[in-house]
Formats: sequence, structure tokens, C-alpha cells
Amino acid sequence: MGYIYIKVFFSFYIIQNLKLDANLIKSSYFCNMFENKNQSRTPLSQMGEFQLIEHLTKTFSLSHKTSIKGVGDDAAVLKLNRNQTVVTTDLLVEGIHFDLSYMPLKHLGYKAVMVNLSDVYAMNAEATQITVSIAVSNRFTLEAVEELYAGIALACKNYKIDLVGGDTSSSTTGLIISVTALGQVAKEKTTYRSGAQPNDILVVSGDLGGAYLGLQVLEREKAVFQVNPNAQPDLSNYAYCVERQLKPEARKDIVELLKDLEIVPNAMIDISDGLSSEIHHLCKSSNLGCQIFEEKLPIDPQALSTAEEFKMNSTTAMLNGGEDYELLMSIKQSDFDKIKNHPLLTPIGHFTEKNDSCNLITGLGQSIKMEAQGWKNFDKE
Amino acid sequence: MGYIYIKVFFSFYIIQNLKLDANLIKSSYFCNMFENKNQSRTPLSQMGEFQLIEHLTKTFSLSHKTSIKGVGDDAAVLKLNRNQTVVTTDLLVEGIHFDLSYMPLKHLGYKAVMVNLSDVYAMNAEATQITVSIAVSNRFTLEAVEELYAGIALACKNYKIDLVGGDTSSSTTGLIISVTALGQVAKEKTTYRSGAQPNDILVVSGDLGGAYLGLQVLEREKAVFQVNPNAQPDLSNYAYCVERQLKPEARKDIVELLKDLEIVPNAMIDISDGLSSEIHHLCKSSNLGCQIFEEKLPIDPQALSTAEEFKMNSTTAMLNGGEDYELLMSIKQSDFDKIKNHPLLTPIGHFTEKNDSCNLITGLGQSIKMEAQGWKNFDKE
Repeated sequence: MGYIYIKVFFSFYIIQNLKLDANLIKSSYFCNMFENKNQSRTPLSQMGEFQLIEHLTKTFSLSHKTSIKGVGDDAAVLKLNRNQTVVTTDLLVEGIHFDLSYMPLKHLGYKAVMVNLSDVYAMNAEATQITVSIAVSNRFTLEAVEELYAGIALACKNYKIDLVGGDTSSSTTGLIISVTALGQVAKEKTTYRSGAQPNDILVVSGDLGGAYLGLQVLEREKAVFQVNPNAQPDLSNYAYCVERQLKPEARKDIVELLKDLEIVPNAMIDISDGLSSEIHHLCKSSNLGCQIFEEKLPIDPQALSTAEEFKMNSTTAMLNGGEDYELLMSIKQSDFDKIKNHPLLTPIGHFTEKNDSCNLITGLGQSIKMEAQGWKNFDKE
Repeated sequence: MGYIYIKVFFSFYIIQNLKLDANLIKSSYFCNMFENKNQSRTPLSQMGEFQLIEHLTKTFSLSHKTSIKGVGDDAAVLKLNRNQTVVTTDLLVEGIHFDLSYMPLKHLGYKAVMVNLSDVYAMNAEATQITVSIAVSNRFTLEAVEELYAGIALACKNYKIDLVGGDTSSSTTGLIISVTALGQVAKEKTTYRSGAQPNDILVVSGDLGGAYLGLQVLEREKAVFQVNPNAQPDLSNYAYCVERQLKPEARKDIVELLKDLEIVPNAMIDISDGLSSEIHHLCKSSNLGCQIFEEKLPIDPQALSTAEEFKMNSTTAMLNGGEDYELLMSIKQSDFDKIKNHPLLTPIGHFTEKNDSCNLITGLGQSIKMEAQGWKNFDKE
């Protein structure tokens, strides 16, 4: 997909959708490109690797007392003084995990951080530091990479994260982003996948299916645009879903809420790969079965109407869509009163005994064995 | 470059050079491919992402008490109980950092770990854990990825490192490896780039230029092979240099030696990007100048003869070649007697006052200002 194409398609999208996230989108590189033809386009080859790292990271400051030394030495130095440190890493590859024809680079930088923070929060930990490595082809200008880092910087600011290291490299094609996140949590509060108990309540944060339906909308508009470059997508009816896809938020607020409510889940997992798959992970790790009630699954009205428009089963979108970056937790029955009717937390079922299967109870009362739909991204090529 | 080509070229190379590193090379996937046409070739698309991670990491065990939970949850959990934690990350991209026509996958896995450990050792730290993320195109089979992980496993075994996490993904082209390494060091023993003092002695471990000259040999043999696929490279005269390129070792032994000698360098850096560039980093971070003596620079006799054969200036290879994974340190004058005549450590010059430049004193006594030759990998495309 060509550079120019990205620019033009996305600029239409931005014009129609400033309300989606005005600050983030307004400053988008591609948007600016459209508005100002004279904006500079500096080839990366003008800079050495060290210069580029220095240039991209010079505005990042350290806010955690645990960050002793950030970018600029052989390694970052941290003074991690709480009981336990959590470490997680994710790789985002152009053409596999994102499509730059509708994903602005600033959003992508933001999302790359969120994907990792979500895993830290799933351990009930406070996220504190990240490292970011990128490989870029010469299709990208310095200004494009700056946009990517602007999104990373915004994520660091919003979530109080220190960028402490990384690597930049060229690639023969496309863009690759590798983020590693660190966090800290007291030993007794760490939530593994393996701690769920029979009769625990399965609780999910936020709502489901939105990110997947947002992706369907963007893919449809891209297809329309490819046929008719003058078509201006009106995404105003899909703003929530599109935002779930383009600018997800990791649930730091849920970890803080659990602390306030004095709840330590017996188990917790982030559901970025889809609810169904993650429920299977919890059941397998905890060696339990579960019952999930279809009618309890939370969905936003806009996601529901979008599913109807696309003639998609909304339950399928909720179970297998993925990329929702919500948290799924196993709560003791005795904690149920604390979360009952909380707008951010929805009980969707409960764990059953050892060796039971994972069943979905449909609205009609049927019990269906759920299948683990792992995200087989290796068939995507 | 085609798959078959890799296989055939490399198998000749292996046959000629078993002595290079018999255990590592003998078990090479490409080598096996040549010997046994019936070896299975399983497409990665047969496996989901979770299955692949599980399959690749199931043989890795945790040996550090600080590794509480490794692969298999949202994040690894570590109990880092010493003063300070160091974190470093590096990205290796096919076609930029390595060429699979002469780099067997097992070696590549090994080297990817070494590159990161070297940065940990440069902080005077003990390396303890790594995470490894890979993106692979469908050109790679399961067996190929297993070979890569066999190299990672060997590195973990040899250096006592726990693999605690990672990510696998497909890529649209080629192979990308992202490794993050963690280590631990007491606060008072941490060696930053910024601590060098005027009159400190600059000391380098091992010898220089070998890895670069090994690369020249491999590139030459590849070119010969492309013209004449029946040519069988005889690399026996270049075994040391080729090994420096294909199977570098990080200098854990030097960190241990410094401990035994009761030396804490005022500053330390790994010289993977070339001595000249790294000296500039030390001088810039410590705000000093330095004098380096050309005749003191350590080189292996084979590297010297190879440089002569290639009509290359050996000093240039030592200063700017890169990839030597040695440590460069700044030692107090009072520690000089402890390292004097040690076979692994070579004094090559000393730091001078603030704002002085970095000068190379040639064998003829001339003083030449050294230039920082950063590795501008962005022009490589």
C-alpha cells in the first residue's frame, strides 16, 4: 500500500471524525500532511541510529523514583523496591497487527503501549516502565517516526509510565514495534491465571465486541475508498467502535478500583485475544470448568447495532472478536456484594468443578461447549 | 534469497568447518536438511500462537530464585531483591543485522541473546532473565523456528539465564527477533558510561576487529557461491574470525574477573558498535577527552592476516568494525597493577581533561582526531 494512499484516505477520515478524539487525531501526521503540503519530510538516512534515539527520546522525562537511569547507557537502571516485578512484551507487525491506511501513527504508538500495559494490569500490578524498539523501512520519514513517538509519549503521560530504553533499526519492509513493559505488585496481590476456585464469579470489565466491530467498519470503508477515492467515509455512527479499535485504553482504572474495593481477584487475565480464548486459558491454568451466560455479556448499544448492520452474531463478536483490552477476573462469592451493579464490572458466569468443560448458556437456556478460538495469526499470510 | 539456496550454501560451509563449533553447527537445521531429505517440514500455520509459544518454551526451566513465574501468564513475575535492576533490549532484523545464507538459525538464536547480555555485563551486572519475541514469515517451518530456539536455549544454559516471556507473530517478510534482558547489580558497583575520570586508564577485553573480518570472509564466500554453486568454501584459515561473527560470546567472564580482582571500573560500555564510536560515547557521557595508542590495540594474528589478505587497514577494522562484544572500561590508575599483563585485558590509552578531543596516537607518533563512526544502519536499504 502506497504512502500517498495512506495520506489521502486517512485525511478524509479525520475530517469526518474529529470528535472521535480531537487532540489525538488533530495532530496526526497524515492529517497535517494533507493540510500543509510544505511540511518537511526528512529521510531517516540523514540520521545515525544514536542521533535518532536521542532525538526521539529527548522529551521523555522520568517520573518514577524507581527509574534511576533511562535511555542513554548500555541498559536502563531501575531500583525496584516492592515485592515483585512483572515483565511482559508484545510485538506489533505492519500488515499483521495493524494497517496504516486507517491507523494513524500516533494512535499506533499509543496502542502499542496499551497492549503491553494491559498485560501488566492483568497481574494486578502498577505499570511503571517500558522499553520500545522499532524497525522502520525507508518508506517512513523522520516526521512519521516522530508521530509514532508522540503517541508513545501521550500514553506514557496518561498512564504515568517511564520510557527507559529501546532500539531503533531499519527494516527491509514495513514497521515493527516491540514494547516491553515492567510493573510492580505486592506478592499477596499478584493475580495469576491459575488461582481461580470453583464457584468463583467470572467478572469482566467494560464491554465486549466493540474493537472487532470497529475493525469491520474500517475495513469496509477502506474497501470503498479503494474503489472510489472520492468517497468520504462518514464514521459518526461508529465512533465508539472505531475508537475501541484505534485508541484502546488499558484498564489501569480497574486495578485502582479493585484496590479501593479491597478486592484481590483469585485470578485475572486480559482479554485482548478474545473472551472465549481467555476463558479457556483461565480454566486450563486453574484446572476448572465454567458456565458463561450469553445474556449477561456486556455490549455497547452501538456495537450491537453495528453487528446487526453487518449481519454478524453479536455474541460471536463478544466471544471471539478480540482486542477489547478489558480484564477478566475470578472473584470470590464473598466479594460479590462489593461489585454488584458497578457500572464498570459485569458478572458473566461462574467457575465449576475440576475437569468440567467451559459452557455457554444461551438466551434460550441451551448449554453449548465453548471452543478456544486462539488468534492463529500464522494463517494470515 | 531462496530457502533452498540457504540450505545448500550453508551445508557446504558446515562440512568444511565442523571444528568451528562442532556441537552447535552439527545440529544445525540446514545441515540436517542436507543430510536427511526426509526431515519433516511443518508449516507454522498448523499451530496457533499459544500452541507455538508453549511448544517452543516447554523445555526451558527456571534456574534463578528471582524468577517466580516464567512463560504462561499475562506477564512474567520476578522477585528482584538486589539493589538495582538493569534492563536492555535489542532488535535483530533479517537483511539488516543478519543474513541467513551464512548464519544458521541456531547460531542466530545464540547471538541474539549474546547481543543483549553484553549490554547487561557492560553495567557490571549479573544477567538473570530474558524475554524473546519473534516475527517470522511463512517461509519458515516449525523446525526452523525450533532451531532458532535451540540456540536461545543453549545461550540460556551456558550463561544461566531464565527465559521468562515473549511473543510470537507472523511477519509479511523475513525474520525479526526482539530480546529484552534483565540483570542485577549492587548500586555501588553499577558502571555507567558517565563515571570516567581524567587520567583513568582505558582498558579493553579480548581482541578487536575479528567479527568484522569474519563478516568480510563470509560475504566473499557468499559472492563466490552465487556465481558458482559448486564452489566449496574452505574457511579453515578463518575459523577464529568466522566464529567471532557467527557465535560471539558476551563477556560474563570479564565481569566475574573484575569482581575477583576487586575492581569496579569508573565507567564501562560494550563495544558492539565499534571501538571508535563507543570511546566517543564514554568521552561524551563523562565529558572528557582521551588518547588511544594504535600500537596497543589488541588483534588476533588471524584477524591481522585476514585484514592483510583483504587489503584492509587493520586499525580501521579494530576501530570501526563493530560486533566484537568486548567490554571497554575506565580503570583508576591505582587499579593498574591488578590488571597489568592480564591476558584478557589490554590497556589501550587514557582519559584526558574535560573538553579535550579523542585522539589516536599512531605508530609513527602522530596524533589524529578520532571520528565517531556510528552505525548508520538506515542507509543500508
